[in-house]
Amino acid sequence: MKLPQVLAFDVFGTVVDWHGSIAREVDAMGLGVDGDEFALAWRAGYQPAMQRVRSGELGWTLIDDLHRMILDDLLRRFGIHHLDEAARQHLNRAWHRLDPWPDSVAGLTRLKSRYMICSLSNGNLGLLAAMAKRAGLPWDCILSAEVFRAYKPDPATYLGVAKVFGVAPQEVMLVAAHHDDLAAARACGLRTAYVERPLEFGPRHPKDVSPQPGCDVHATDLVALADLLRC
Amino acid sequence: MKLPQVLAFDVFGTVVDWHGSIAREVDAMGLGVDGDEFALAWRAGYQPAMQRVRSGELGWTLIDDLHRMILDDLLRRFGIHHLDEAARQHLNRAWHRLDPWPDSVAGLTRLKSRYMICSLSNGNLGLLAAMAKRAGLPWDCILSAEVFRAYKPDPATYLGVAKVFGVAPQEVMLVAAHHDDLAAARACGLRTAYVERPLEFGPRHPKDVSPQPGCDVHATDLVALADLLRC
Repeated sequence: MKLPQVLAFDVFGTVVDWHGSIAREVDAMGLGVDGDEFALAWRAGYQPAMQRVRSGELGWTLIDDLHRMILDDLLRRFGIHHLDEAARQHLNRAWHRLDPWPDSVAGLTRLKSRYMICSLSNGNLGLLAAMAKRAGLPWDCILSAEVFRAYKPDPATYLGVAKVFGVAPQEVMLVAAHHDDLAAARACGLRTAYVERPLEFGPRHPKDVSPQPGCDVHATDLVALADLLRC
Repeated sequence: MKLPQVLAFDVFGTVVDWHGSIAREVDAMGLGVDGDEFALAWRAGYQPAMQRVRSGELGWTLIDDLHRMILDDLLRRFGIHHLDEAARQHLNRAWHRLDPWPDSVAGLTRLKSRYMICSLSNGNLGLLAAMAKRAGLPWDCILSAEVFRAYKPDPATYLGVAKVFGVAPQEVMLVAAHHDDLAAARACGLRTAYVERPLEFGPRHPKDVSPQPGCDVHATDLVALADLLRC
C-alpha cells in the first residue's frame, strides 16, 4: 500500500470516550439519573438532530447548539426541572471535556511524526479546540463540518480535507471507529482505517468490532495504527 | 485590564519572517535576482490580489493560488523564463516554509499555557498547517480567512473568532505587527496587542515600530507579550 500524506480522524468514539466521559459527569452531578442511560440517550439524539439540518428543516447549526436542544428535551424526559441556565450551559460543555482513550495521545503523537494529522468531526471548531487543549490531542490542524458547512457523510467533508491540503483524495486516509463513516469516505476515493472501540457505548453495551471488507487497515487502537503505518 | 480568553495572531510578519525566508530561498536558487527585492515584490502583489477577490473581480481564491498568480507575473518581469511547473510549484510553497522569528515558538508556548491561541491569517489552512508543523508553532486551533470565506480586514474574520469560541468580541485579543489590522479588529470590539517587528521588510528597509494610540498592549516580541499578559 502506498502510504497516505494526511490522516483525518473521526473524533467522538474514535479518539475520545464520549460515553464514559458524559456518564461520569452526569453521575457526579447527583441528578438521580443513571449516567450510562443519560449518555446513551443524549448521543441517540445526535443523528436525528443533524438530519434536521441536512433536510433543511433547520438552517446550519453548530453541534454545541444541537447538543443543547437535545439536552433540554432530555432533562424534561428524565424529569429534571431544577437546573438553571448556567448549570445547563456547563453540562452542555461536557462535550468539550471528553477524555481521550488511553492510547490516543501516544498514538497520535507517533502518527504526527510522519503524517499530517487532522480531525474531521461533525463537532464544531470551538468544541474540538477546547477538547484538544484539555486532553493534549496534538492535531496539526483541526478540521470540522463547520469549515465545510456540511456534516459527514456529505462528500464535501471528505473531499474538503483533500482540497485543504492540496492532495488527491487517495492521499488522505480517514481513521474512524464507524464503518458507515469509512464507507462514505471510500466512496469519495479516500483510504480508510478502522479502529476497534469495543467500549464506545460503555461496558454494559459492548460493540461488535469485527473486521468488515473494504478497509485498507484494521487496528485495535491508535498505537497499533502507528505500528501498521510504520511510525 | 481584564484579561482576554482567546489570543488570535496575525501570522505573516507577526509570527514568521516572510521577507527573510523568501529572500533566502530565492538567493539559494541562484536565479540571478536579488532575493531581497524579489521577496518585497512578491509581497507587494499580495494586497492588490486580495483586493481583486474583495471587489468580486475574482471569485473566492486561496492565498496559495494568489501567490502563484503573482509569482508567474514576477518571473516574467524579472526575466526568468526557464523554471518549469514543478520548480514553480516548489517555489510557490516557500510560503509554507517561512521561519518563525527567534522568539515566536517560546512566546506562543508560554501564552498557550494560559490562553486559547489561534492564528487569524489570510493564509489558507493548508499553508498555515504545513508552516506550523515545520516551524513547531503550537496553535490550539488554526483559523484562516478560508474558514470565514472573507479576508481581513473584513469584520466577518474578527467577529468569526469570537463566534468560533463562543465568547464576546472583547474577550478576544488580536496580536499583530500591523496597525491597520489592529484598528479593524478594534472597530469590531476586539482588544489589540501590537508587536514590534522592525525587520519585517528586511535589514535594508527598517520599519517604524513606534507605538500608536489605541492598542491595549505594545510588546517588543512574543516573549515580552507573555510577560505583559502574565504567563
